Amino acid sequence: MEKNVLGTHVIAQIGILVRDIEKTCEAYAEFFGVENPGWSFTAPVEMARTEYRGERSEARAKLAFFKMGSLQLELIEPDEHPSTWREYLDEHGEGPHHIAFRIEGMKDKVMTLELNQMPLLQKGEYTGGRYAYIDTLESLKVIIELLENDKK
Amino acid sequence: MEKNVLGTHVIAQIGILVRDIEKTCEAYAEFFGVENPGWSFTAPVEMARTEYRGERSEARAKLAFFKMGSLQLELIEPDEHPSTWREYLDEHGEGPHHIAFRIEGMKDKVMTLELNQMPLLQKGEYTGGRYAYIDTLESLKVIIELLENDKK
Repeated sequence: MEKNVLGTHVIAQIGILVRDIEKTCEAYAEFFGVENPGWSFTAPVEMARTEYRGERSEARAKLAFFKMGSLQLELIEPDEHPSTWREYLDEHGEGPHHIAFRIEGMKDKVMTLELNQMPLLQKGEYTGGRYAYIDTLESLKVIIELLENDKK
Repeated sequence: MEKNVLGTHVIAQIGILVRDIEKTCEAYAEFFGVENPGWSFTAPVEMARTEYRGERSEARAKLAFFKMGSLQLELIEPDEHPSTWREYLDEHGEGPHHIAFRIEGMKDKVMTLELNQMPLLQKGEYTGGRYAYIDTLESLKVIIELLENDKK
């Protein structure tokens, strides 16, 4: 594989799976003495066009974002529909799920990764951009997420 | 507990447990197109004065550090002696273990945390400073590490 396929090695986000986002949000806000950012739902499937392991999924999650220095810490409480969030939470329990990178050219990058034994786990759209989770567990020991925001 | 006991919410490091640090180092260097930083051993117990769950431990680990934007990504391959690294690796497999914060006043901070149901898991010394892992799994869903470097 070409080196540096992502075009970056700046970690933009750490994602942590939780079972009760309100409680954990409160714990983070208290512990770090920052404002509780509240949580919001991911877009519904019609808008998010979520695909998990190649199939359309109804899955949604509650998300909360804390700014922790130059990166975001994201809390994720998934629903019961099939997703990488639900699968990983069921298998590993609460805790870190992914590290994320801001990239450009999502389709090409995902294709290159898939051709190199790093399969797409899940993808979806959000207002102003799209994400893809890649199964890099074997080589990097952590799932990576690609985030691509539309040019403004 | 007083809010913001750490005095910071800047994530300085994310630590990932691995079983073969040479292989995973190579994978990171290749994937992100950066130089392989190599690994080094933590200090021997006489110097590190490692304590795990209140008892002196011979535990050492191989460590490698990648600069990933403003934070370090640390790979950790523990030996077989008792440590939070070994325990977590045995229970959870390879993957993220902690997020770390640079602090001042280690003793006071660890004491405050312990008084607030966030027990010290492991501590030790390294050249120029000291570390402590805190069991914040219940509230924050991830272990945190405090890093204190000596003033130069």
